[in-house]
This record gives sequence, C-alpha cells and structure tokens, in this order.
Amino acid sequence: MTDAPMTAQAASTATAGDILSSHLTALAGAFLRALPLAVGEVGARPGVSAVASEGTADLLRAVRRINGLLHTFGPSFEAGWVQESRAELGWLLNLLALEPGYVRRAARLLGALDGLNGSETEGPGMLAGHAGAPKARALLDRQLTLARTRAHSTVLQELRSARLHALADRMTLLVAETPLAASAAGRAGAVLVPQAAAAFGALAASAQQLPLHRAATPYGGDGLRRLGAVPSARGALDADAALAADDAPWHRTGVLVKRARYALEVCGRPSAVLDELDRVLLRHLEASEAAVTAATAARTPRITPATAYVLGVVHADQRLEVEAARYAFGRRWPELPPGTEAWLELSPVESWGPSAESRTA
Amino acid sequence: MTDAPMTAQAASTATAGDILSSHLTALAGAFLRALPLAVGEVGARPGVSAVASEGTADLLRAVRRINGLLHTFGPSFEAGWVQESRAELGWLLNLLALEPGYVRRAARLLGALDGLNGSETEGPGMLAGHAGAPKARALLDRQLTLARTRAHSTVLQELRSARLHALADRMTLLVAETPLAASAAGRAGAVLVPQAAAAFGALAASAQQLPLHRAATPYGGDGLRRLGAVPSARGALDADAALAADDAPWHRTGVLVKRARYALEVCGRPSAVLDELDRVLLRHLEASEAAVTAATAARTPRITPATAYVLGVVHADQRLEVEAARYAFGRRWPELPPGTEAWLELSPVESWGPSAESRTA
Repeated sequence: MTDAPMTAQAASTATAGDILSSHLTALAGAFLRALPLAVGEVGARPGVSAVASEGTADLLRAVRRINGLLHTFGPSFEAGWVQESRAELGWLLNLLALEPGYVRRAARLLGALDGLNGSETEGPGMLAGHAGAPKARALLDRQLTLARTRAHSTVLQELRSARLHALADRMTLLVAETPLAASAAGRAGAVLVPQAAAAFGALAASAQQLPLHRAATPYGGDGLRRLGAVPSARGALDADAALAADDAPWHRTGVLVKRARYALEVCGRPSAVLDELDRVLLRHLEASEAAVTAATAARTPRITPATAYVLGVVHADQRLEVEAARYAFGRRWPELPPGTEAWLELSPVESWGPSAESRTA
Repeated sequence: MTDAPMTAQAASTATAGDILSSHLTALAGAFLRALPLAVGEVGARPGVSAVASEGTADLLRAVRRINGLLHTFGPSFEAGWVQESRAELGWLLNLLALEPGYVRRAARLLGALDGLNGSETEGPGMLAGHAGAPKARALLDRQLTLARTRAHSTVLQELRSARLHALADRMTLLVAETPLAASAAGRAGAVLVPQAAAAFGALAASAQQLPLHRAATPYGGDGLRRLGAVPSARGALDADAALAADDAPWHRTGVLVKRARYALEVCGRPSAVLDELDRVLLRHLEASEAAVTAATAARTPRITPATAYVLGVVHADQRLEVEAARYAFGRRWPELPPGTEAWLELSPVESWGPSAESRTA
C-alpha cells in the first residue's frame, strides 16, 4: 500500500473508473506481496502456532476489501469478471479465515474459562477450585487443536492448488488493467456515491430488522432466551437451531457493516463509528461460534458431570458475550445518520484516495 | 394499621417519644392482629403451599419495621428492653422468612429454567429440547421442596413455643406503654432527625465501599469473575466462599437500605427511590441464594452430565441476575443526595405520622 493517495484536485475531475482502478491496483498489489508470505508461513508450520501470521493477516485484509469493493461497486465492472472474481475471492476468504478463526476461538474460550476459574491475576471466579475446570479446559483445548490441525492441512493443500495460482494470475492482471464497465467513465461522484449509498441502504435495512429496542436495555437475557422458534426436523424444539437463527440477522448486519466501511474507504472517509460497529459485530460472531463449541463439547460422550457443569457455565458466559455485543451495537447504532445517503451527504467528497489509516483491519 | 396519622399541627409540637410511641403502637397492633392468622395459616398447611400467606406476610412486615425502628432510634428507648426485644424480633424474623424464602427461590429457579428452556410462550431458549432440562428441573424442585418441608416443620414447632408467647406478651405491653428513655422527651425534630441521619450515614458509608464504578458499566462480568480472593481452610481457592464474600457487602447495604427506608417512614416521608433500591438489593440477595442452590444441586452424586450442564447454565444465569441487580443499584444510587443528612434536610419535617402507602412491603 505504498501508492500515494490521489490529491483532492485530481480527485475532483476523476472518473469512477480512475478511483476504482487506483484502489484495486493498490489492493491487488498488497494481495500479491502478502501471498508468498502467507504460503511460506503456513508451510513453515508443521503444526499450529498460537498467533495469527502477519502474511496471512495481510492477505485476508486485501481479499476482504477487494471482495467488498467488487460487491458494492459491481455495476462499474465487467459483469462476468466481477462474478468470477468474487466466487474465487470468497473461496480464498473462507479458506484463509479458518485457521486464525480457531486460534482466536481457543484464545476466547480458554481465556473465558481462566477468567471464570480465576487462577489468573484478576481474583477468583465462580469456577475457582472446581474439579471440572481443568478437565473442561483440557477437553476444549484438545477439540480446538484438532480442528485447527485439520484446518491447517486443508489450507496447506489448497495454497498449492491450481485454483490459487489462477486467482493470483487474476490479481496480477488486475494490477495491469481493471476490467471496467462503460458506466465507469462517468464522474466519480455521480457514479460511486449512489452505489456506496446502496451499501448503506442495505445496512440500514438490515439493522432495522434487529431487536435493537430490546438489546439497548442491558441484562434482558436476549442472547440466552426468547429466541425465535425454529422447530427441528423431528418437530421438537432445537436450541442449536434457535440460537443460530437468533444470531443470523446480526451476522448478516456484520457483513453489511464491513461492506459499508470499505465503501467509505473508497470515498476517502474512514469512519471510526463503523470501525467500532465492525469490531462489535465481530465480537458477536466470535462469541456465538465459541458458544456453539462449548455446547458441542458438553455433548462429548463419557465426560464427568463436573466437566459438563463447567461447560454449561462457559456456554452461558459466551451467550452473555453475545448479548453484551448486541447491547454495544444498540448503543452505537442510533448515533449513525438515519437516512441511507446521509453518510455520503454529510461531508462533500473531497478526496477519493486510499488513506493509509483506513487499512488497519 | 387503622390508626389515624397524627396531624401536622400536632406533630410540630410532638416529642420524640410521642412519635415513636405512635408508630410502635400501630406496628405492635399489626403484629398482634397478624400473629394468630400466621399461626393458623402455617398450622392449616400439612405440607407446603405455592403462595406466601397473607398473615405471615403481614407479620413479617410488622416485625421488620419494629426491629428497624428499635435499631435506628435505639437511644430513645430503655436500653435493656431494646436489646431483648431486638434479639427476639430477629429470631422471629429469621424463622418466618425461612419458608416464604424457599417458595420464592423455587419460583425464581424453576422460572429461570423454564425461561432458558423456553417451553413457555416467550420462544425457545438456549436449553430448549436439552435432555438435561427436565432432569435438572425435577432435581431442583425435589431439593427445594424438601428444604421447604423442613422449614415448615421448624416454623410449626416454634410458633407454638413459649418463646413466641413471650414475644406476643412483649408486643401487648408495647401497645399499652412504650418503654422510653429520658431523652425521648425532647422535641421530635431535635431527637429523631440526628438518629435517622445516622442510619443514612451508615448506608452511605456502606455503599461507598461497593465497586459501583464497575457495576455501573453493564456486562463487566463482575458477578461471575474478579471476586475477592478468599482462600479456604485447605489453602485452595474456593468459589463458594469467594462468591459469598463478593456478595456480602451488597447484602449488608440491603439491610441498611431497609433501615433507612423505615426511618424515613417514621419521618412521614416514604421515598420511592429507597423503595426501588430495596427491591433491587432483595433481587441481588435472592439471585445470590438461588445461584448457591443451583451450584449445590450440581454437586449431587450420580447426576448425569446433561443435568450438570443445565445446572451450570442456570448457575451462570443467576450470577448474571446478581450482576444485573448491581448494575441497577449503580445506576440509581448516585441519584440520592450525597450528604448523610441531606435526605432529612431536603424537605422540612412536616408530618411525623405513619402514612398508609409506606406500609406496602
């Protein structure tokens, strides 16, 4: 990301294609620089490492943004190229996110367990001295390490695949020339602002479906009870399905927050509020997934009642984290301008260049 | 409580003894009217009933207030009489509160379990369809019913004891004449206001020791982790002891809120804020005790892992209720006037009579 941002003067006469090409060239360059590092990092580790790798993180960052831009500003590109590129980027995104996801989930669950146990510096917790705590910790650690090892093998295999080589070639071509549609010849403001506004419209519509009035009152217990009813195939109530259905609209909103955030970056105006909402809904997603892991671990055959009891506490604790994230979102969301285009109307588009500080995550 | 309140004119020239006698006579009358009803109610139930009885509730109400007044305005009475009376009233209070306490605890725990299970109208919860939910419900129900049955037998026995007859005689004498100290001959305002202020001073000092700055931020997890360290006799960390030590200052504050509330009633100015804080800290106490019951049930030998898992969720849920009550207290407490005497200085004492609406709990 060494390209100098376009100046405000140059931007004022730029076409939509100029702006998008400038962004995508920079992002494709970041992709191509990070790819060999990521491949090397994954290959160098025979097992799993505790920290997420720098190269993989950079690669994920570039892939997420390219994917987001191709979605939001799709009509400015050749339709077939956009569709193919997004399919391949989506595949790589899921692949790359797998192992770091397990690393973060292990850190979250074992950290929560240690906090509830309180063997650490912060004083004891409600599981301090409980016979089930070390057993539950070992069980979670074992199951997550196994999942990470499997994910690692999959990633290692796919990073050497022809499919990845083809995607790298696609990015190399992108640096040379962006396959723009005819409409991209229009002025940046006239073409890109409505497309970015549509991304905000989708976010606003999604957020409007959330039970924000309930989430804004703390301790309502919404992440733990009063879930939407989802009868299972057997006709009985299924808590896993009900929890997943209850969380899904929040996860969808999280995707839309990311897209809106990346669209604002193209418009040269990164938003601290959107960055925070992105973090809040990532916390929602990770706590929701960690809760599933705890509930699944509790169904392991032949565990002791003490282990199961501790996993019940950890499961409830993670659902509480889900509820806390919803509360945080419900507190911040109303601070955003209400109208769909209000974000882009609030301050005139002066600089369309990529700004370095907006690329931190 | 049919006694007419004293008029403002009469009150303005009343002595402290007049005011206290008027209150205590009314309360002792309520005690004597409620006592046979309470004895009859307890005796009429061979087992246990789901609802708290009216007579017992009235008796508890009178005992709490007489006990509170004797504590706050103790220097206005004969010292020996106050000491003996408070010991006997405390004994009856603990005795009478036992059975209704188990009734409310069962309602709270089984209600929480049903909410988490979500078989009720509000939609499924995180324990919906879980094999352990009906087992955990049956276990909690069985253990609490047993505890209530034992408490009932104890109460039944003590309500026929010579000790209770002696206390009833003490209340009968109180209706006839209040054993006042010489200092009670002073003007009501000059004698009672400093004593009531001391009750508020004790409450303020107790609340100042609470971690209100932490409790005022929701979802800090304070009721579940970061407890004060209390090494057990064996030197190991003991979660039960740590939780009890963490809750104790809040329970103490709850007692002081009640005393301040009753002192304000004597001053003829019931406070809606104090009533609410009283309810909030009662919720804290009941959730704290319910959490202990869930944790204890999870240690029952030979339960299934599924049952233990559900009890872990219920335990965490009740600790969350503890945290929610702390949050509610932390939000309301700063609305109270800061100084110890501010409450009584805010509005001049115009009427010292007992007001009917202040006797609702």
